[in-house]
Amino acid sequence: MLTVKDATTAIDYYKRAFSAGEVSRFVTPTGQVVAELAIEDEHFFVVDENRAAQNVSPSSLGGTTVRMSLLVGDPDAVMEHAIAEGGTTVFPIADQPYGMRQGRIADPSGHHWLIGKPLGNGLPSR
Amino acid sequence: MLTVKDATTAIDYYKRAFSAGEVSRFVTPTGQVVAELAIEDEHFFVVDENRAAQNVSPSSLGGTTVRMSLLVGDPDAVMEHAIAEGGTTVFPIADQPYGMRQGRIADPSGHHWLIGKPLGNGLPSR
Repeated sequence: MLTVKDATTAIDYYKRAFSAGEVSRFVTPTGQVVAELAIEDEHFFVVDENRAAQNVSPSSLGGTTVRMSLLVGDPDAVMEHAIAEGGTTVFPIADQPYGMRQGRIADPSGHHWLIGKPLGNGLPSR
Repeated sequence: MLTVKDATTAIDYYKRAFSAGEVSRFVTPTGQVVAELAIEDEHFFVVDENRAAQNVSPSSLGGTTVRMSLLVGDPDAVMEHAIAEGGTTVFPIADQPYGMRQGRIADPSGHHWLIGKPLGNGLPSR
């Protein structure tokens, strides 16, 4: 569950950048948007910040404690598209010594995404 | 991928608290532990902090931007066990108005875990 400053804007980014589908969306009694999204079969939630509940966004904390990892068929194209839609490069895509072609972006809400695929003939293990 | 101050200690906690299995573990050339763990079929990584690479732990940031959600058969027992192993309660387990029996803990590394199951006869959607 990713906490963001503005869930409506963040959800729109994940749809545009990663072709995320919206599974559900509701607003809590205290006014926070909570949405379940899915990128292919991988589900995650996007939730408005609520500091009283210890749900704090990267914008407020000045960084993030977790990164999401996407395994995709064409990471160069996915990364280029995610940046074109408003992400920023943390490190550029390249063949990495740990056996992946991978790059990393920060999305407009400040969450970080690794975008990659195994090098060589390997398929993702899951 | 969860960034922590001390991956070795954190991995041990996830094994004890959540019966996580260790899929792999290696040490980067700059000395950070990177481990892949799995709770049943759900995989995640635990990685030592490396601020130069923008991998920052909850301890360093003073909070966390993401929470993990565990759907389990007996959330009361799982939550009690996770606290006995060193976690702290963020909110106690209870029947929540959004249709789940759920509680929330902070683990010793500062990452937050929701522990719950759907109320009534519903089964988890995944």
